[in-house]
Amino acid sequence: MSAQRYVFNHSMLRVKDPDVSLDFYERVMGMKLMHRLDIEQGEFTLFFLVDAQLAEQAPPEGPERANWLFSQRGVLELTHNWGTENDPDFAYHDGNAQPQGFGHICISVPDLERAVVAFDEEGVSFVKRPEDGMMRNIAFIRDPDGYWIEILQADRMTVF
Amino acid sequence: MSAQRYVFNHSMLRVKDPDVSLDFYERVMGMKLMHRLDIEQGEFTLFFLVDAQLAEQAPPEGPERANWLFSQRGVLELTHNWGTENDPDFAYHDGNAQPQGFGHICISVPDLERAVVAFDEEGVSFVKRPEDGMMRNIAFIRDPDGYWIEILQADRMTVF
Repeated sequence: MSAQRYVFNHSMLRVKDPDVSLDFYERVMGMKLMHRLDIEQGEFTLFFLVDAQLAEQAPPEGPERANWLFSQRGVLELTHNWGTENDPDFAYHDGNAQPQGFGHICISVPDLERAVVAFDEEGVSFVKRPEDGMMRNIAFIRDPDGYWIEILQADRMTVF
Repeated sequence: MSAQRYVFNHSMLRVKDPDVSLDFYERVMGMKLMHRLDIEQGEFTLFFLVDAQLAEQAPPEGPERANWLFSQRGVLELTHNWGTENDPDFAYHDGNAQPQGFGHICISVPDLERAVVAFDEEGVSFVKRPEDGMMRNIAFIRDPDGYWIEILQADRMTVF
């Protein structure tokens, strides 16, 4: 059955200012930009990122990289509609305010406390610090557009 | 640097009726439910799915599976707030209608035409069939809540 070979490849989020978002996802979240695709006639640009460990396996730019990238799991696609970064009133909807739908993406980190220290050093905004609420093993931060990012440490997720 | 070991683990979508969504993601999209977590005090349930090939690598239920699951890429988390399935007027926001934000998830398939045939047999709703518009190598379908799912065949993505 063909569906047995389907792969959950990527999730796409629209971003207001790609310079700000790429800096955040690359420098703070440890991801690497694998490719950008400028669509002139649609006046938008797509950015495809993967985490640093996965990026090390990527073939050089070209058709081989495309085939590789779209066969992986855990790709983040950011879409920039040109010009939104110049409108001070422009903002995307995070999916957690009404109307609700999409909730968050999640980054698994090797050391939750160390990640929190790094986020604080970068002035990252928290929705929930680990010590807030009942779930002490996870945090939620906001990306530059306000999308929620869950932060967890896998070996502490003994919830099962 | 710690961020070099971060992993993009999952994306979370709220769903109205988990029976409908699980049937869709498991039977039509080839994913497997790895764990469900019922949160009584919050009156919601979390469902964690991965694609069939990844599911084959999963350890048995228990703390080892939790550690494994939250270390992977390409996990889909579905959140069900209890009771929404009984409200005929209840619907989640797909992020593509206004107000915009989240765009879509994407499933990479080994054979686009074969996937389209399977979707048609299941009565899946299309946002864009491969032959519509300029991008002939991709399709967009709707999941049961209306979230968009891009369908692509990796070795045809010679867009770079």
